[in-house]
Amino acid sequence: MLCAAELGQKIDKKVFNERVPSLRTELLLAQNQLRQAADFSVVAVVAGSDAAGKGRTVNRLHQWLDTRYVQTHAFDQPSDEQAERPLAWRYWRVLPAKGRMAIFLGSWYSEVIRAMLAGELSETDFARALGHLSTFEQQLTDDGTLLVKYWFHIPKKLQKKRLERYASDPDRAWRVTDLDWRNLRHYDRLRPICERLLNETHSSQAPWLVVDGTDRRYRELTVSEHLLQSLRSRLDTVPTVSLPSPVPVHTSEVETDGPTVLSQLDLDQEISRSHYRRQLRKWQGRLNKLSRQAHKKRTGVVLVFEGADAAGKGGAIRRVTTALDARRYEVVPIAAPNDEERARHYLWRFWRRLPRAGNWTVFDRSWYGRVLVERVEQFATEPEWRRAYQEIRDFEELLCEHGIVLVKFWLHIDLDEQAKRFAEREQVPYKQYKITDEDYRNRSKWPQYETAVQDMFQQTCRPHAPWTLVEANDKYFARIKVLRTICDHLRAGVRS
Amino acid sequence: MLCAAELGQKIDKKVFNERVPSLRTELLLAQNQLRQAADFSVVAVVAGSDAAGKGRTVNRLHQWLDTRYVQTHAFDQPSDEQAERPLAWRYWRVLPAKGRMAIFLGSWYSEVIRAMLAGELSETDFARALGHLSTFEQQLTDDGTLLVKYWFHIPKKLQKKRLERYASDPDRAWRVTDLDWRNLRHYDRLRPICERLLNETHSSQAPWLVVDGTDRRYRELTVSEHLLQSLRSRLDTVPTVSLPSPVPVHTSEVETDGPTVLSQLDLDQEISRSHYRRQLRKWQGRLNKLSRQAHKKRTGVVLVFEGADAAGKGGAIRRVTTALDARRYEVVPIAAPNDEERARHYLWRFWRRLPRAGNWTVFDRSWYGRVLVERVEQFATEPEWRRAYQEIRDFEELLCEHGIVLVKFWLHIDLDEQAKRFAEREQVPYKQYKITDEDYRNRSKWPQYETAVQDMFQQTCRPHAPWTLVEANDKYFARIKVLRTICDHLRAGVRS
Repeated sequence: MLCAAELGQKIDKKVFNERVPSLRTELLLAQNQLRQAADFSVVAVVAGSDAAGKGRTVNRLHQWLDTRYVQTHAFDQPSDEQAERPLAWRYWRVLPAKGRMAIFLGSWYSEVIRAMLAGELSETDFARALGHLSTFEQQLTDDGTLLVKYWFHIPKKLQKKRLERYASDPDRAWRVTDLDWRNLRHYDRLRPICERLLNETHSSQAPWLVVDGTDRRYRELTVSEHLLQSLRSRLDTVPTVSLPSPVPVHTSEVETDGPTVLSQLDLDQEISRSHYRRQLRKWQGRLNKLSRQAHKKRTGVVLVFEGADAAGKGGAIRRVTTALDARRYEVVPIAAPNDEERARHYLWRFWRRLPRAGNWTVFDRSWYGRVLVERVEQFATEPEWRRAYQEIRDFEELLCEHGIVLVKFWLHIDLDEQAKRFAEREQVPYKQYKITDEDYRNRSKWPQYETAVQDMFQQTCRPHAPWTLVEANDKYFARIKVLRTICDHLRAGVRS
Repeated sequence: MLCAAELGQKIDKKVFNERVPSLRTELLLAQNQLRQAADFSVVAVVAGSDAAGKGRTVNRLHQWLDTRYVQTHAFDQPSDEQAERPLAWRYWRVLPAKGRMAIFLGSWYSEVIRAMLAGELSETDFARALGHLSTFEQQLTDDGTLLVKYWFHIPKKLQKKRLERYASDPDRAWRVTDLDWRNLRHYDRLRPICERLLNETHSSQAPWLVVDGTDRRYRELTVSEHLLQSLRSRLDTVPTVSLPSPVPVHTSEVETDGPTVLSQLDLDQEISRSHYRRQLRKWQGRLNKLSRQAHKKRTGVVLVFEGADAAGKGGAIRRVTTALDARRYEVVPIAAPNDEERARHYLWRFWRRLPRAGNWTVFDRSWYGRVLVERVEQFATEPEWRRAYQEIRDFEELLCEHGIVLVKFWLHIDLDEQAKRFAEREQVPYKQYKITDEDYRNRSKWPQYETAVQDMFQQTCRPHAPWTLVEANDKYFARIKVLRTICDHLRAGVRS
C-alpha cells in the first residue's frame, strides 16, 4: 500500500488557494450539523512516518474546524495513572461524545510499532496486538462512530532530509527525537511492519487512507477533503445510530423449555447460622490477607455481581468489602447511565471506573446489563445486544491480559424465594425503599430473563473469565460461596 | 484541644453491642434519605495521629453504611497527573455528587502537616496553606455540602506502644511506615503544629471533633453517632441547598448611571487590513515561540474569554490556537452544565478541565458565568453570585500560585455593532446557527449585563489575575490586542 504514496504528488498554490475557502465553509457546516444532530462521534486517526507532516496537517485541521468541538490527543509515555490500567484505557478515557470529533495523533498504532521495532513483541504478540486494535475500532464503528484513518508516508530519502533540516534549525530541533533517528536507521525494517499493520487493520468500516506526505498542500487537501466527504456522506444518508454488526454472532441459544444451567442448580443447599459465622470469619480473614498480597503485587481486582432482584447481591458485596481496606476499593452501583455516559459507547462507563493497580472495583450490576435488562426491556436493539457478547469477551480479555483478577457472580434464587424476600423487605423500615413497582413488574418477565441469562453464560463464560453460579436461596450459603470463590481466584491470580 | 482527647475514654462491650444495631439501621435510613433527596453531599474528613485508629474506624463506617454510596479516598504521593496541577485538584476531582458521601482519609491536612514538619514551609506559608484549606472547606459548605471533620488523637506513649506492636506482627508490619516512626520521634514538635492547625481551621460550618483514639469501641461509636446526628439534623431541618454566605461581601457596586469602565473604552480604535495581516503574522510567530518555551518549562496556561454575544470571542480564540500545537491545547466551550456537573459545586467543571503541565486550556466563557448570565438570568441566587466573587478570587489564586499563566479577556462591543453582526451572521450560511432568539432577548438586558460586568471587574481584577478589556468593535484591532496581551503575560510568566 505504501508505494502508492511515493509518487511525490503535489498541488500547486493556485489550485490550493481556490479550493480552500469553500472547503473551510463546508467543513464548518458539516461540523455544525454533526454537533446539532449529535447522534454519532467522529474519530480521526493520524499515524505514519516521522517527518511526514502529521502534526502540521492536524494543526491545519484545527485551523479550519471549529476548535471548540474537536480535540487532538497525542500519547507519549503513559502517565502512572495510565500505566496502571490496560493500555486501551487511555484511549477509552478520552473518546469524544456524540456530536464531537477527536483526532488521535500517532494513536493506538504508535505503541505497537514501537514495541515491535524494539523487539519486545513476538510475531504472535504482534498479530494479537493488531487483533485487539481492529476489535477496538470495530467496537467504535459498531457503536456508530465515524472512524477515518490516515497513514502518512514519505520515502526514506525525504525523511532523512527533513530530519536533518529540522535538527539544524534551532526553532525546530526540539521536534526531532532520538526515536526519530532510530526509526530512520531502521526504515527498511520498519516498512514491512507498517505494511503488515496496514493490511491487517484495514477494513470496510475502518479503512486506511495512505497519504503522500511529500507536499504540504497535497496532504492537507487530501486529508481535509476526505474527512469532509466521509462526514458528509454519513450526515446525508444515515438516519440512525446503530448499524447492524457485520460480524455474525453464533446463535447458540437453547430452547427455553429444555433444562437450563439455572434449572439444574440445587437451590436447597444451606448452612446453619453457627456454621456460617465460623466460615465467615475464616474466609474474610483469608480474603483480607490475600487482598493485602494483591495490593503489594499491584494486582487490580474487578468483581461483577449479577442476579435477580433481591438475590442478595448487596449483602454478599458487603461481606466481601468488610474484609477489604476502605481506601482500596470502590463499589459501583449500575443504574441508568448519566448524560456523559449516554453520549458514548456503553462500555465507556465501565472503562472509566477500572481500578488503579492494587485496588478493587466491585460492580453491583455491570456491563452484562446490555444482554440482560437492555435485551429483555428492549432498550438495546437486537443487533446491539447480540454483538455485545463479543464486545464483552474482548473487554474482559483486555482486563485479564493486563493482569486484573476478574470474578463474575450470578446469584440465583427462585420465584418463591424472591416473593418471600419482597414481602420481608416491605416489613423492614430501612429496606422498604428497595421495593418498587418495577420489581414486581420484572417478576412477570422471569422466563425472558432466564433465557437471557442462559445465553449470557454460554457466550461469556471463558477460561480466563468464568462465571460462578451461586445458589442463593440460602443467603449464608451464597455469601460463603462468594467469599471462597474470590479467595480461590485471588490465590491463582496473584501467584501467577 | 488535644488534651481533652487524652482521658482514655472507653465504652464497654455490652453498651457497644446494645447501641450498634439501632445505630446501623438509622445510619442506613439517613443515608438512603440523603440519596433520595440528593440535594447535598457529605464529606467526612478523618485525620490525626498515626496509629490512632483512623483506618479501622473508616473500615467500620464502611461496614455500617451502604458502601455503594460512600467512597473513601486516601492520598499518598501525588500521581504525575496530580502533580501537574494545583494540589487541590486531586480533592476537587473526587468530590461526591449530591446524595453521596465521601470520606477523605488523611485528606488535605496530611500534606500540609508533612511539609511543615519537614521544614518545607515558613510560618507564613503554613498560615497561608491553612487559609487555603479553610477557604476550600467554606466553598464546600457554602455550596451545601455537609462537612464533618474528625481528628483522631492518642498520647505519645500509646502511639509508641501501638507502632511497636504493629511492627512486630507480620500481618500488620506493612502498616508502619518510615513516616510513622519519624512522626513519633517528632511527636513533641508535631503537637503544637496540630494544635494550631485545629484552631485555625475550626469554624462553625466546619468544626473539628477531636476523637480520643485509645479505645476502639469508643472512637467508632463517637464518630458514627456524630455523623448520624449531623446527617439527621441536616436532613430534618434544611429544606434547600443554598445557604446564605456567612462572609459579608463588599458591596462596592457603582451606580449604573455613572461612567463605567466599559463606557470609557474607546471602541473606535481600528487597524487596516494590511496592517492587521502583518501584525497577525508577527504576533502569532511570537506566540508560537513563547508557547514552546512554556511547554519546555512545563508552564500551564489558562485563557478566559468573556464578552457579549457576537463580540468575536470565537474568532479571537481561533487566531490564538492557530499559533499553538494542536496536541497541546483544548478549547472548552461553556454552556449549560451536564448532569455530573450540575450535581456538584459550580467550580468543579472548571477544576476538571485544568491543563496538565505545559498544556493550555482555553475557556470560551468560563466560571464568570456565575456572576454574569447566572446573576442576570437569576439562575443563581443573590447570596450565591455574591459569594462567587470571593470563590473566584480564591480559585484563581490557586492557579497562579501553582505557576499557571492565567489571562482573562473581556471583549467589548456596543449595541450597534452587535446588531450589525447579528444581521451579518444571518447572511452567512455557516454562521446562521449561531443566531437564536435567545441572542435577541439578551440584548434587552444590556444594562443589567453592564452592571454585572462592572462589578465583575471591580471584584476580580487582581494583580496576579488582571482583566484585559478589549475594544472589539474592530475585529482586527481586538485580535491583535489579544495576541499581544497573551505574549506579554507569557513572557513574564515563563521567565519568572
